[in-house]
Amino acid sequence: MMSTAVSGKLCSANGKSIPDGIADTARLIVSGIDRPRIVSNITGCLSQFGANIIESQQFSTEAHGGLFFLRIEFHVSCLRMILPELELALTYHANAYGLSWRLVPVADVKRMAIMVSREEHALNELLMRWRSGDFLADISMVISNHPHHGKAVESLGIPYHYIPVTPDTKSAAEDKQLELLSGNVDFVVLARYMQILSPRFVERFPYRIINIHHGLLPAFAGANPYRAAKERGVKLIGATAHYVTSELDAGPIIEQDVTRVDHRHGVAELRRRGSHLERSVLATAVSWHVQDRVIVHGNSTITFTN
Amino acid sequence: MMSTAVSGKLCSANGKSIPDGIADTARLIVSGIDRPRIVSNITGCLSQFGANIIESQQFSTEAHGGLFFLRIEFHVSCLRMILPELELALTYHANAYGLSWRLVPVADVKRMAIMVSREEHALNELLMRWRSGDFLADISMVISNHPHHGKAVESLGIPYHYIPVTPDTKSAAEDKQLELLSGNVDFVVLARYMQILSPRFVERFPYRIINIHHGLLPAFAGANPYRAAKERGVKLIGATAHYVTSELDAGPIIEQDVTRVDHRHGVAELRRRGSHLERSVLATAVSWHVQDRVIVHGNSTITFTN
Amino acid sequence: MMSTAVSGKLCSANGKSIPDGIADTARLIVSGIDRPRIVSNITGCLSQFGANIIESQQFSTEAHGGLFFLRIEFHVSCLRMILPELELALTYHANAYGLSWRLVPVADVKRMAIMVSREEHALNELLMRWRSGDFLADISMVISNHPHHGKAVESLGIPYHYIPVTPDTKSAAEDKQLELLSGNVDFVVLARYMQILSPRFVERFPYRIINIHHGLLPAFAGANPYRAAKERGVKLIGATAHYVTSELDAGPIIEQDVTRVDHRHGVAELRRRGSHLERSVLATAVSWHVQDRVIVHGNSTITFTN
Amino acid sequence: MMSTAVSGKLCSANGKSIPDGIADTARLIVSGIDRPRIVSNITGCLSQFGANIIESQQFSTEAHGGLFFLRIEFHVSCLRMILPELELALTYHANAYGLSWRLVPVADVKRMAIMVSREEHALNELLMRWRSGDFLADISMVISNHPHHGKAVESLGIPYHYIPVTPDTKSAAEDKQLELLSGNVDFVVLARYMQILSPRFVERFPYRIINIHHGLLPAFAGANPYRAAKERGVKLIGATAHYVTSELDAGPIIEQDVTRVDHRHGVAELRRRGSHLERSVLATAVSWHVQDRVIVHGNSTITFTN
Repeated sequence: MMSTAVSGKLCSANGKSIPDGIADTARLIVSGIDRPRIVSNITGCLSQFGANIIESQQFSTEAHGGLFFLRIEFHVSCLRMILPELELALTYHANAYGLSWRLVPVADVKRMAIMVSREEHALNELLMRWRSGDFLADISMVISNHPHHGKAVESLGIPYHYIPVTPDTKSAAEDKQLELLSGNVDFVVLARYMQILSPRFVERFPYRIINIHHGLLPAFAGANPYRAAKERGVKLIGATAHYVTSELDAGPIIEQDVTRVDHRHGVAELRRRGSHLERSVLATAVSWHVQDRVIVHGNSTITFTN
Repeated sequence: MMSTAVSGKLCSANGKSIPDGIADTARLIVSGIDRPRIVSNITGCLSQFGANIIESQQFSTEAHGGLFFLRIEFHVSCLRMILPELELALTYHANAYGLSWRLVPVADVKRMAIMVSREEHALNELLMRWRSGDFLADISMVISNHPHHGKAVESLGIPYHYIPVTPDTKSAAEDKQLELLSGNVDFVVLARYMQILSPRFVERFPYRIINIHHGLLPAFAGANPYRAAKERGVKLIGATAHYVTSELDAGPIIEQDVTRVDHRHGVAELRRRGSHLERSVLATAVSWHVQDRVIVHGNSTITFTN
Repeated sequence: MMSTAVSGKLCSANGKSIPDGIADTARLIVSGIDRPRIVSNITGCLSQFGANIIESQQFSTEAHGGLFFLRIEFHVSCLRMILPELELALTYHANAYGLSWRLVPVADVKRMAIMVSREEHALNELLMRWRSGDFLADISMVISNHPHHGKAVESLGIPYHYIPVTPDTKSAAEDKQLELLSGNVDFVVLARYMQILSPRFVERFPYRIINIHHGLLPAFAGANPYRAAKERGVKLIGATAHYVTSELDAGPIIEQDVTRVDHRHGVAELRRRGSHLERSVLATAVSWHVQDRVIVHGNSTITFTN
Repeated sequence: MMSTAVSGKLCSANGKSIPDGIADTARLIVSGIDRPRIVSNITGCLSQFGANIIESQQFSTEAHGGLFFLRIEFHVSCLRMILPELELALTYHANAYGLSWRLVPVADVKRMAIMVSREEHALNELLMRWRSGDFLADISMVISNHPHHGKAVESLGIPYHYIPVTPDTKSAAEDKQLELLSGNVDFVVLARYMQILSPRFVERFPYRIINIHHGLLPAFAGANPYRAAKERGVKLIGATAHYVTSELDAGPIIEQDVTRVDHRHGVAELRRRGSHLERSVLATAVSWHVQDRVIVHGNSTITFTN
């Protein structure tokens, strides 16, 4: 069963004032075997607390007896005060139906770490959207195997950790990274981080590491996807945001998009055009993750988009 | 209050076998002032009848006290048998909350009329999708002010009514059209029907006439949108499917899409490219309407798409 | 060297009147090692005949010394009369620069055969566009391993050949197909023809067989691409039109497009949505091929699109 | 006749090393009444200088006797040395055919000014792309009626001029702006600059002021396009980059794009989604302008895109 650790913290994010009403808004994510009455019981439970449903999406894998997924965003007066009682009530219903659930007060702002190598476009896009208030999230730190983004990152008040990685030092570098991350972040974004993470690292953040792959998976997995795309003569190039699993480029896909190319575009131009795709696809995926809109199901995702 | 006329008929549509389980599937459309407990009451009511929710979408215009819209598709054993009782129960809840509602057994196949002038592409697209089973709907008739689609339409077993329209005969022609339509169709699709319908006609089918406009409304309303688009030098042309109201090209928009054009494309080429857009946008709008996915709200639509 | 067989025939196509000026319009396709002065020599040669260039596109693989590709559409008075002399002049220039070339009077309407299996959507799209004059081409015949499209095809005055194919009769069936096609068609369109053609068949129409694959190649090559797409959990499905080579689904790509899908869409729904993509991607590829806009280069294509 | 002022300067741009071969690359833009032999004469003239054509696009408004537009990008050894002679030769041919022309050495980097008000997204996108080398251009200055972008802009080494504008001071503010711009910039980009420029200002930069309008022109011209889009209930919102003329939002359109929205998205969300569109549409338009790919023709543009 999933549950929520409600911190007392009422969030800083990027120095933007917290949007009105956020303090009394929460998201409930539920999954389990589909059965009649689940929705009416859950929504009934919420309404006993006077909750008003702002947004609700559900999905059943089958018409009968498959798996069931629900995401409800609701507003309720004095959320903090009633939270223990509400959690108790939800536990009761969830147990009765064998459901997993997670209750996330929107004010419990997620903390993300960004890992990045030499190319800065994906990092810059995330920083730009974060500054404009697109992500209600904290950026706890940026970790890079290159030193040169430090000045820009630190000028925004975000800690920057330069940890070089060579084949020899990779394991020690991961130790350092994990030490920095441990307990300090809720998820990790690989914004064109070009080192393959070890299984040991990945296991520490199950379905909580988002990578942007510069190809339209499952095509062009692995290195040099733009070169491979050029060689195959495709007419569309793409980018894919996915959760990282121990198998390279094979984790659940969160979002994908494409742009049109043709014979005139060499590998460098594909890279340039693709970089803009990577920026927007990664930013969308991060924004959905931050808002608890992505639920992993097998090796794919349910995306309750907005 | 909306209610449903449940015919005993179990549908022919286009000779395709009725998809499995359709006989026990229905859609419930609810709207009204938003209040806590609506969803839990409605879903509670459904589950008392053993209904299983297949798809559910809801929308509130405000976080508190705005308008509320709900579409639920559900499966329940012996739908026909329990229907009177279920309607009674829904009436009870709806009255308590001041809600409007509509219950539509999926097997109550909607009957559509298609009206078309000289150009055949939109008509052909609708017929092609209907034959392939994309629309679970009956095509009751095709009405045209041109004779030459008759053979193709009648070869599919659909009645074709050729009713010429001139400025002098327009009113009499509408009389004939209304006589044919009256009681025989649930909605009308204007598949490039180039006559403006009189308010008298429109009022007979409130928000049940779908038009495809060959421009990206509100730009290029009225005649010759492709010429106007060329003159303005736009880089995208569009098509708009909307409900017809008494004001020309100003009714609620159901769906829109665009395609890229440039300086090389003359008006004839815009028309050719636009025709493919018109086909797909109209087909999408008809398919949503058939599935009760479009709810008119003021002069816009809520589209619970799939 | 490519050259053109100028028939005396002035085209019937689909009974549409031949567009004005077509009789004096031609396309010149040139390729070879890039060198200075090629363009000025070729265009100089054309202007000595009083030709007016309507459209011209060129592409060099490198800034210096790579390969060079040129497509010019031009209008010239009394094309038929001057053609032998023009061809002689072009031969002279081509020999001087070691170029390959092809001169195609637009009135030499290409003859296509369509091969199709059970699913009719791609066939219907091609027929619909052909009837509306989108393709200036003749449809010489439709060949199918299923009998049931015969009536619709023959009603348009197009011969329909039903040739059943079983594992045992496949070779004999290809003999029959090749006998029908031989000398009677310029290219072949596989409009969801679900039999794999033998190398012997493919070699008879080098880069003149267009297939529509219902996946976004190189992803999901082979059978059941929609099922494979569902299993991988992609957020976009695609279709790919390509020239057929002896290697399955690996020939030069002509055109591709995608549409958005998500967790709600099962394999049947992917198939339905994909079918509309297949229709438009194939129709675009055929239209480019008909207009000599596609040049094969290695295993990819140069597409001088309009 | 257009001609080029060839400065001796070999460009600094954004500190990126000048791409290889740029010093010997130039663009030739030609327009005039269409006649046979123009292309062969121009290309013949270029090849007499040993030029190699890298990219060539042309467009004729009619098959005969309309207007003719040509853009050629070519490489020639020792461009600077031969330039006077080449210009002389082009003048000769242009005079013979009554053509206008412009020769632009690619190393003559254009100087742009950016004008911006409170919202920073469009400014940031331009700066980000400029830093990554997407635009081979100099940013001479940023002018704003708000002080708060100064720090970020100046940290990149770009002068920032804060010039407040009130209804009373508008004319004086324009005087100051024009003084700063005069002789120092080749074109001006309005990156969400929310003041309407006076005709006097506009006339100083004919077709050399690019504005990003946050609506899909001609729909939603004027103020508050997102609010107007919401009220009309459109299903797509757009952004339009256009040259500024004395008539508000009515100048030649350079580029447009759209994104999908629906009933769930309020005006604030349209603004947020639209801001990403504005960024990419403006950046594309600037990049085309920088590369001399946009030619104004009447009130529309010929865009020789890449």
